[in-house]
Amino acid sequence: MAVKKIGTQTVKFDSPPVITGTSSIVGPKEGEGPLSSYFDVILKDDLFGEKSWELAESKMLREAVKSAVEKSGKKLSDIEYMFSGDLLNQLMSASFAARDLGIPFYGLYGACSTMTESLSLGAMTVDGGYADNLVAVTSSHFSSAERQFRFPLEHGNQRKLTAQWTVTGAGAAIVSSSGYGPRIDYVTTGKVVDLGIKDANNMGAAMAPAAADTIVKHFEDTGLPTSYYDLIITGDLGKIGKEIAEELVLDKGYDILKNYNDCGLLIFDNKAQDTHAGGSGCGCSASVFCGYIYKEMMKNNINSVLLISTGALLSVTSTQQKQSIPGIAHAVSITNNRC
Amino acid sequence: MAVKKIGTQTVKFDSPPVITGTSSIVGPKEGEGPLSSYFDVILKDDLFGEKSWELAESKMLREAVKSAVEKSGKKLSDIEYMFSGDLLNQLMSASFAARDLGIPFYGLYGACSTMTESLSLGAMTVDGGYADNLVAVTSSHFSSAERQFRFPLEHGNQRKLTAQWTVTGAGAAIVSSSGYGPRIDYVTTGKVVDLGIKDANNMGAAMAPAAADTIVKHFEDTGLPTSYYDLIITGDLGKIGKEIAEELVLDKGYDILKNYNDCGLLIFDNKAQDTHAGGSGCGCSASVFCGYIYKEMMKNNINSVLLISTGALLSVTSTQQKQSIPGIAHAVSITNNRC
Repeated sequence: MAVKKIGTQTVKFDSPPVITGTSSIVGPKEGEGPLSSYFDVILKDDLFGEKSWELAESKMLREAVKSAVEKSGKKLSDIEYMFSGDLLNQLMSASFAARDLGIPFYGLYGACSTMTESLSLGAMTVDGGYADNLVAVTSSHFSSAERQFRFPLEHGNQRKLTAQWTVTGAGAAIVSSSGYGPRIDYVTTGKVVDLGIKDANNMGAAMAPAAADTIVKHFEDTGLPTSYYDLIITGDLGKIGKEIAEELVLDKGYDILKNYNDCGLLIFDNKAQDTHAGGSGCGCSASVFCGYIYKEMMKNNINSVLLISTGALLSVTSTQQKQSIPGIAHAVSITNNRC
Repeated sequence: MAVKKIGTQTVKFDSPPVITGTSSIVGPKEGEGPLSSYFDVILKDDLFGEKSWELAESKMLREAVKSAVEKSGKKLSDIEYMFSGDLLNQLMSASFAARDLGIPFYGLYGACSTMTESLSLGAMTVDGGYADNLVAVTSSHFSSAERQFRFPLEHGNQRKLTAQWTVTGAGAAIVSSSGYGPRIDYVTTGKVVDLGIKDANNMGAAMAPAAADTIVKHFEDTGLPTSYYDLIITGDLGKIGKEIAEELVLDKGYDILKNYNDCGLLIFDNKAQDTHAGGSGCGCSASVFCGYIYKEMMKNNINSVLLISTGALLSVTSTQQKQSIPGIAHAVSITNNRC
């Protein structure tokens, strides 16, 4: 029996899993942004000593796992599952890292929603009694994403003002059955929502309806007031998507104006860094959560967070076939209610 | 505490989830093969009334879900999660189907191992108390896979004898907390294994070490004799991979020669249908399990199965960058031990 299910899309954990350690690695541009001091490693060169951006991205993901394991006081052999994905076709970054790490591996694809997809399934796996320690980890890389989804960088293509800047970054979180750290109390699993946006240069607008849908569902299912959270934060809606999401959530009777922000708006100084509508990519919410949010939670400056990573489920093929862009968002409720 | 974990990579369920219904849809070529009578729908045209192969594949996946829901005696609104993936970049098939179906969605990528990845996570979600009914579903399509991974079909490229034939097919299984049907007793989660094969036309050889690793781990973890199973069946190793896997498993002291087969060898008559080393693709083990195996289990002709879907985690990019092909395999133990 689904005794831990509340409402239609939310799970409330019996034994809320603990995030016992995190680690983040970002590229040079992210290291020059406002959250600079929160990242564990800032690369000087986005090739990271590898021969291709894809291999560099995989190395970032792998090193983030190793560092998070160490920071949580565990050994690599303690980690029972790796829940991971990235933006690359066939998850080249995550798959290759899982090979090198030798951890039993579940590959996930939720586009930029993958960080909360991995945290959701990771938390269900720990609370379900299937593991004591596992890692949830994702990555993205500006250069590997640009050439896969858009244009060769050498093309020097002008970017639309609605476009976002894919974060070069990886974030890993160790999810454990016991230990010290913030806990995952609830997860709300998202549906795919598609209001017909076809502009691949305006993904914030494509993802906003899915984000709003999951946020509203979370409050409906839990009955919590929106003021329960110190911070409600979406993954990478950017400036345009954030405004749409606020409005859509307000339309349903939930006011999140005071405590809502977006990882894609925090990671860059959009004006100074010329990142247009904001940061995006799996690595955006991953590095912002594993860097900034987790560290502020450990200092008790933030005590309750609803993290909603947001994904645009487009592909080059679907765009060429003139299909609209489906969006998805998964929410994870993380608090300092330490038992 | 990980009370349901046995050994290093296996979970034993407290309340083994029930597979209450399945459905399978295949293309014209699969419908001419030896398992023809087991499939629920055989398409006359692999475009399935759509404008592209990718949209046809997504429709197959979607229709397989609807049919499985109906056959299990449920309504679509009873289905709490959809665990699904496919071979297309960014999971175009699964994502678009999830949008149309409106079921909370976890996108998975394990290449051709995705059917047992979805059954594993689905079973953990039901046994964990998070859902009473969910669907595990995958698809593949010969034409969409060929043009994505290999050559345009119009090119008329000659196929190597070691090459496999991607199955046009989808299979959906409803996993429930109660009801009538075979039960999922154990899952063994695979590691990524890579012995250095670089030939994208010999994926059986690339995947065989991962399959062998997971099979051996399953018997080590559970302590079961190999004779426990009426059928041990890999996903799509084909002729070459199957022989390698048999040998690798035997090397570790487990004899599976009498009860081992491969879905990729069952679905086609390789000689008559000119499919070289055998069938492959997510849809191979999905349609063979949801068609042939499930129906034979319901008739009590097969009473215990270890299903090990097998994935080759290559991409066009990783091949162009001269990387080897990592493999992965997840095992699901399904029996007629009805409570």
